[in-house]
Amino acid sequence: MNFSEYIKLYKPKINDAIKLIYDKKIKSVKNAFLKAYYSELREYFLAGGKKIRPLLCIATYNAFKKKKDDKIVFPSVGTEFLHNASLIHDDIIDKDNFRRGKPAFHYRFRQYHEIHDLKKIPAEDFGNSIGIIGGDSAFFLGLEAYLYNNFKQDLNVNAIQYYEEVFKELCEGVLIEIDMVNQQNLKIHDYIEMISLKTGALIEKSILIGANYARVDDKYKTYLSTYGKNLGIIFQISDDILGTFGDEKITGKPVNGDIREGKKTCLLIEAYNTLNDKKRAQLNKLIKMPEITDIEVKEVKELFLEADVINSCKNLADTYYQEAKMSIDKLKGVINQSEVEFFEDLLNFVIKRKF
Amino acid sequence: MNFSEYIKLYKPKINDAIKLIYDKKIKSVKNAFLKAYYSELREYFLAGGKKIRPLLCIATYNAFKKKKDDKIVFPSVGTEFLHNASLIHDDIIDKDNFRRGKPAFHYRFRQYHEIHDLKKIPAEDFGNSIGIIGGDSAFFLGLEAYLYNNFKQDLNVNAIQYYEEVFKELCEGVLIEIDMVNQQNLKIHDYIEMISLKTGALIEKSILIGANYARVDDKYKTYLSTYGKNLGIIFQISDDILGTFGDEKITGKPVNGDIREGKKTCLLIEAYNTLNDKKRAQLNKLIKMPEITDIEVKEVKELFLEADVINSCKNLADTYYQEAKMSIDKLKGVINQSEVEFFEDLLNFVIKRKF
Repeated sequence: MNFSEYIKLYKPKINDAIKLIYDKKIKSVKNAFLKAYYSELREYFLAGGKKIRPLLCIATYNAFKKKKDDKIVFPSVGTEFLHNASLIHDDIIDKDNFRRGKPAFHYRFRQYHEIHDLKKIPAEDFGNSIGIIGGDSAFFLGLEAYLYNNFKQDLNVNAIQYYEEVFKELCEGVLIEIDMVNQQNLKIHDYIEMISLKTGALIEKSILIGANYARVDDKYKTYLSTYGKNLGIIFQISDDILGTFGDEKITGKPVNGDIREGKKTCLLIEAYNTLNDKKRAQLNKLIKMPEITDIEVKEVKELFLEADVINSCKNLADTYYQEAKMSIDKLKGVINQSEVEFFEDLLNFVIKRKF
Repeated sequence: MNFSEYIKLYKPKINDAIKLIYDKKIKSVKNAFLKAYYSELREYFLAGGKKIRPLLCIATYNAFKKKKDDKIVFPSVGTEFLHNASLIHDDIIDKDNFRRGKPAFHYRFRQYHEIHDLKKIPAEDFGNSIGIIGGDSAFFLGLEAYLYNNFKQDLNVNAIQYYEEVFKELCEGVLIEIDMVNQQNLKIHDYIEMISLKTGALIEKSILIGANYARVDDKYKTYLSTYGKNLGIIFQISDDILGTFGDEKITGKPVNGDIREGKKTCLLIEAYNTLNDKKRAQLNKLIKMPEITDIEVKEVKELFLEADVINSCKNLADTYYQEAKMSIDKLKGVINQSEVEFFEDLLNFVIKRKF
């Protein structure tokens, strides 16, 4: 089954599992504000996204099973909760009011504040407060995927260990990224380390949680792990490219945010390490400015193009692509052919994606 | 053993368990900023607080054991992580820069920003960002208390279910409190419901987690649960009284914050329900103002005193005190005498506390 066939078959089931968790909460509370809060969280979760993490968990489980079953769908949504929870907090940190073309979670409550004409707290503070708690709730609700399902307790404890471990990695990735804004002389190796934590780890753990529930032998987990981490790395590299050179109409995200925030993307690091001293100093000066004009953003992009960073970043992604492909090759004959197809197709989708 | 004997014996052990969890993290990371981050979290956790939640967990476990052992100390710190994590996020939400007479966690990173002269991000945003992630980290690190210990897996899964459940209750309590600022005609019943979630639930769950590890029979859990919830309720009622009429020098917290923020404390609700129409309208007008002067704060306090709210709140606390005491009485003969003493002493400490 290719990637889009997998989406077609499993996305409705994944959404049902998410609904189940939220509907239980909505039903359990009497307070009108809490009902509105959980409903908004549910809507935010269902509003969009390709559900790549649950799909990977399901596909890995299926890959090792002679007979498929849907028991894996419920625990597969755990990492989707973690992912969305971290997006909710990220959007507050980055002051991004929109996500997937719709209002960010905290921004929904800024709007709620305006509709209800609440006077005592400023609208922005109100939105951020509910957003902080919203992320917290979602992080924890993800645990329900492992606490209330039809698998044995030892498998659930292992899954929670992965969940806790990956949460730590994700936080560390975000922290290193924040710190990197103020660091000099970074190498591409530092960047790869950061995105492995920020993006690679959760993709990897979604796969390993699927493998855990299928009781996959440790010797195969190494290949799965490499595939997952690399898929995440490729995803982040193309995210960086699209964040500066993508088409807003296709990506649904405003471009140039990374340049404005001085984020150490692969584009910036490659440019630093390719340009001559004079041009590097010029780039450095532009990036370090607390406020940057549109003309200056354009200058940065011209320096990027001069350093041919799109190609060097695509080459970088290709190294990880080859390694991921080799890992799947090693699993051929061990896992079901229909999931070989899924893993390969997803890999090709990620390296070619325009959105 | 009375409360202070328990503190003397177990607080160093509790602190060691907290250190163990953080030191493992500090050791595992190479990045200098991450090392600073985990060290700051560790220091924040160890800086103060009576460690009431771990103590209650330990005492409950000990209460049902013929022979005491220290196995319970490690899992007892889980709810302390949850508690501190929620304080970290609360302080961002409430814009409180100090806690226990020391800088709040997010404020420590605002100071870090100033020391390191970071230019790209404003100091306040930097502090809040690290604070949001800091709370997230701490929430999750608490899970390690249940994932890596010497108890059986089924007991650990039960403990994690309590942890997830109480986290949900805590979030709901905070959300209801935020929403109550904009609600009218509240009864003391609404207040009790809110503080049961915000404060009572975590005290209760700390106890139930201790009971879980001691495999306590369900019939005794009801009494433990009532004791815990009521202890939390009494704690919050006296917190409200001290927050407006306490001595800053003793509590270490600035007074009048609740009045300024329009928080629906028991004082305010009792005053609303006691004062005549004219005075109630006057109080309402003062509380609803987005900004309130020192003179107006004083007016509010005078209206509180006119309504004799300190006494009515003390009477309210006393109802919960009696019920908690009865629950302990029911356990006499079942649990060890030294823990009967602990539970009773703690209850008396909480109802009489000045800080």
